Amino acid sequence: MKRVAILGATGSVGRSTLRLLEHRSDAFEPVLLTAHRSTDALLELAAAFSVQHISLAGFTGRSECEAALPAGVDVHFEAEGIIAGLEASEPDLVLNAITGAAGLAASAWTLTTGKRLLLANKESLVAAGPLLRRLEREHGGKILPVDSEHAAIHQCLRGERRQDLRRIILTASGGPFRDLAQEEFADITIDQALRHPTWKMGPRITIGSATLMNKAFEVVEAHYLFDLAPDDIDVVVHRQSIVHSMVEFRDGSVLAQLGVPDMRVPILYCLGWPDRLEFDFQGFDLSRFATLTFEQVDRRRFPALDLGYRCIREGGDSGAVLNAADEVATQAFLDGKIDFVSITRTVDEVLRSHDTRQPESVDDVLMTDAWARAEATNCIAQLSR
Amino acid sequence: MKRVAILGATGSVGRSTLRLLEHRSDAFEPVLLTAHRSTDALLELAAAFSVQHISLAGFTGRSECEAALPAGVDVHFEAEGIIAGLEASEPDLVLNAITGAAGLAASAWTLTTGKRLLLANKESLVAAGPLLRRLEREHGGKILPVDSEHAAIHQCLRGERRQDLRRIILTASGGPFRDLAQEEFADITIDQALRHPTWKMGPRITIGSATLMNKAFEVVEAHYLFDLAPDDIDVVVHRQSIVHSMVEFRDGSVLAQLGVPDMRVPILYCLGWPDRLEFDFQGFDLSRFATLTFEQVDRRRFPALDLGYRCIREGGDSGAVLNAADEVATQAFLDGKIDFVSITRTVDEVLRSHDTRQPESVDDVLMTDAWARAEATNCIAQLSR
Repeated sequence: MKRVAILGATGSVGRSTLRLLEHRSDAFEPVLLTAHRSTDALLELAAAFSVQHISLAGFTGRSECEAALPAGVDVHFEAEGIIAGLEASEPDLVLNAITGAAGLAASAWTLTTGKRLLLANKESLVAAGPLLRRLEREHGGKILPVDSEHAAIHQCLRGERRQDLRRIILTASGGPFRDLAQEEFADITIDQALRHPTWKMGPRITIGSATLMNKAFEVVEAHYLFDLAPDDIDVVVHRQSIVHSMVEFRDGSVLAQLGVPDMRVPILYCLGWPDRLEFDFQGFDLSRFATLTFEQVDRRRFPALDLGYRCIREGGDSGAVLNAADEVATQAFLDGKIDFVSITRTVDEVLRSHDTRQPESVDDVLMTDAWARAEATNCIAQLSR
Repeated sequence: MKRVAILGATGSVGRSTLRLLEHRSDAFEPVLLTAHRSTDALLELAAAFSVQHISLAGFTGRSECEAALPAGVDVHFEAEGIIAGLEASEPDLVLNAITGAAGLAASAWTLTTGKRLLLANKESLVAAGPLLRRLEREHGGKILPVDSEHAAIHQCLRGERRQDLRRIILTASGGPFRDLAQEEFADITIDQALRHPTWKMGPRITIGSATLMNKAFEVVEAHYLFDLAPDDIDVVVHRQSIVHSMVEFRDGSVLAQLGVPDMRVPILYCLGWPDRLEFDFQGFDLSRFATLTFEQVDRRRFPALDLGYRCIREGGDSGAVLNAADEVATQAFLDGKIDFVSITRTVDEVLRSHDTRQPESVDDVLMTDAWARAEATNCIAQLSR
């Protein structure tokens, strides 16, 4: 029986994971569930799955929470409560589905204790890739990417030698604005940006899929996960979200991983790896796989993508800037403070005003993160004036 | 330096292999070239590649051959000359690209001597699958399929556990008649049948691609190579011949191998396996991979496909009947003796009149082969009357 901590349990990846564990209760047991402030939802899940440890990182204590916390459940508060919950619940696997840089400390803790990290919180890796990879090497832990694209690459690389790899091709649905004329981008509304054509996800990643900033993050993530140079990472638009990504080898052969667009597929893969766990997901399906298309990304309409490549080239703590600035800019868009095109412009501007440094610790990364947030907030204030 | 015997050197797979070896003369050396009766072509290749041993299986001796055979080249005649050439040239790898049951003895020799068999002669496996797999196990040899579909499956299975496999999906271009109405099948001309939409190949396999008998053979081949039950092998029409086949795992994940339709890609894979050899083949190519489609096979217009499944279910020597009857019927079509639909009808009839037995040796298989040829010839004589 493997003990699983689920960080960000009330979000879409967290809930998908719990549904999988329900089906495989012979092999997995959830031992910790965390949320930011969704108290009711978290308590409901904890009761349904008989989980003893929960963390509510957005509250400072029981009084502020103001919910009737049941007896027999250990509740940990504040950001530090996530780590306290991890220590108390002693998981074998940690699924990190926290949104944003808030997930970094938990990723670092998981790898420092040599455990398996199922990483849906790609922002950890974007912000602190070299640091997390070093912790992975030093303590014998393992990062398994839950992102469908990186889980696809991971599968295509099974049984292959690193030196045989020529490049990877990440697929992108293209988001809701793949066919929108450039002059209409400034008028995109929040509602329009929240309507993703193929995947159901949380607000930040959905906006990131509309700007293609999420794909920029995935380029950085792929760079760190698979040790790839910028020229060895390509992105193509694939509207159907069936081919989750591809690997091209030096003999011209291409391997692709395909499947229905359901986050449970990559989560199951990460839970079971190196085994593949039996599950009745639809596999190849003629009705849904009938026509698969690939197109070039229009870099003019989606300038966010280039920022990912810029971060790889600059290295150091530039990923932390990319993530923090985008987090602030996306929130500003969702709050109606800036328009759609200003999300990418803000991130671009913050990156330009940043001097790259080599972070040595999580604290270093968090200092860069704080600087980038302040800088982004400044930029946004000037834009809204 | 690996010594390579190329059986069927003057055909399309043989020539592709020689072009590859030319580029990788640092690692591979052709040591035997064989042909049936294409003396001039074979001598030209032997001179160009400085090969010392050649076999001309279609001649009984030097006098019948009537060509000026150069000094310094050891020439072996008759069908047995292929084996004599193999013994004399001491290859490490044997690429068997002979057409039809004539390739069986060489496949058996290669596996009996524990060598690596690069199998383009799928008819060996169709006719004598259980026997060849037994020789492979007993003598430590290795069958690597050169067929693009099976090479694709082989790649998708790298690093995977057999028990995690749910099924395979073989792709078929659908051949030149994929859009032809059933009532027009009887009027198909030889020229029409020889025009394959995506692959350039020899006449027998090209006709087999038009009837889909070639796909029936590949179903049998997959059954023997990967130990698959009939229900675990599917076939879909994929017009672009870019996705060479797919594997579906028990977790719902699908892996596919893609590439330009060039036989050198799977040949290179088999030459280098388990390594992937560097070669400048185009990999993922947006202009050629832009739209990939998958459709159901119309079993009514292409009844040949079902015969492959019937052979798997019947087992024993029924594959030898399938191959021999198709070889005779295809030749009869090419000779203008029967119409296009009678190819499959003849094979069907011969299979129906056959009592399945378990062949213990190559000789047993060849006896069944001879019976099926005679029976097919009879059927054809009655049809032409």
